[in-house]
Amino acid sequence: MGGRTRRRGDALLAVVHQAVLDELDEVGLGRLTMEGIARRAETAKTSLYRRWPSPEELLLDAIAAAYPVETPSPAADDLRGDLIRALELMIEWSRHPTARAVQAVLAERHRHPELVDALYSRVFEPAGRRFTATVLHHYAEVGQLDPGLITPVVEDIGEALVMKHAIDTGEEPTPQRLAEIVDQAILPAVHECPTRR
Amino acid sequence: MGGRTRRRGDALLAVVHQAVLDELDEVGLGRLTMEGIARRAETAKTSLYRRWPSPEELLLDAIAAAYPVETPSPAADDLRGDLIRALELMIEWSRHPTARAVQAVLAERHRHPELVDALYSRVFEPAGRRFTATVLHHYAEVGQLDPGLITPVVEDIGEALVMKHAIDTGEEPTPQRLAEIVDQAILPAVHECPTRR
Repeated sequence: MGGRTRRRGDALLAVVHQAVLDELDEVGLGRLTMEGIARRAETAKTSLYRRWPSPEELLLDAIAAAYPVETPSPAADDLRGDLIRALELMIEWSRHPTARAVQAVLAERHRHPELVDALYSRVFEPAGRRFTATVLHHYAEVGQLDPGLITPVVEDIGEALVMKHAIDTGEEPTPQRLAEIVDQAILPAVHECPTRR
Repeated sequence: MGGRTRRRGDALLAVVHQAVLDELDEVGLGRLTMEGIARRAETAKTSLYRRWPSPEELLLDAIAAAYPVETPSPAADDLRGDLIRALELMIEWSRHPTARAVQAVLAERHRHPELVDALYSRVFEPAGRRFTATVLHHYAEVGQLDPGLITPVVEDIGEALVMKHAIDTGEEPTPQRLAEIVDQAILPAVHECPTRR
């Protein structure tokens, strides 16, 4: 191993994860190789292959490692606040390098449909499908929301409006806008009489 | 003019609009020139400059010419149907070549912020801001909806969920999904008691 300190476990994993993201930024998804990642991480290609069958699998692993899961109030006594925090978590994640990697994967859907499928089934689904969905199902489980109202469309409202705002303005929604998304779109969809509370 | 028939008015305009879209597809926004558009339209660059000060202005004009405006039922007696038709109109538009041009402009926001601003202020705003917004305001004007509920967030719900579906699946929403977007997200946001109707 020459004069280098041997890196093990989490430290090596973090270096390899960073290397795949940097390599993706530089060469793009179509030219991502184990060789390039190994060179960047200063490790052997064979040691990467022992853990990941392909550079795409390594990329998914890096994305999954950084993907957050929202944690609703255990007592389920602050639906509005928990929804706002879930959207804040989404925005925080969107600043992480893996968010750019997710965009790169989605932009190449036609060339890599199986990778997009894996992104949803192995990253987003295990993390709760959508931001706000874990919170909504938590409140349904304790009987505060009608579970029948928490449909795929309703799970999507928060993410959709945050993404739409970014597409329209090129900017993150303000805290004020996040509160409006929760008050004017998500809460009405899960309450029977939101405007009369 | 050699042996060519002189094209005037709408016929020439349609040719020039098509030429700017084709040129954009081929060379991209950064290399769009009056020269390239004129060559493709088989017309003189000077005659383009008589009408449009820049290729970007010509592009905006082509996008605006194809951008649809929804028409709510005059009697305002079918809110749900009018909302579904507004989203259908959005999907129909998304298949038009100008929809690809809009995506190209949005993707270059950092390089052409003023063009993105013009797209919103001179195309989307005059066409009613967002799909479903014209319908919602129409029903508010005749007293069937509380105008205070039709906020920018609520105007955005339909477009946001249609776009989100396309990003997640790479496909257009089915008629079933459009109806769910209207029933589960838009109507609850503008009704006091949607689930008890």
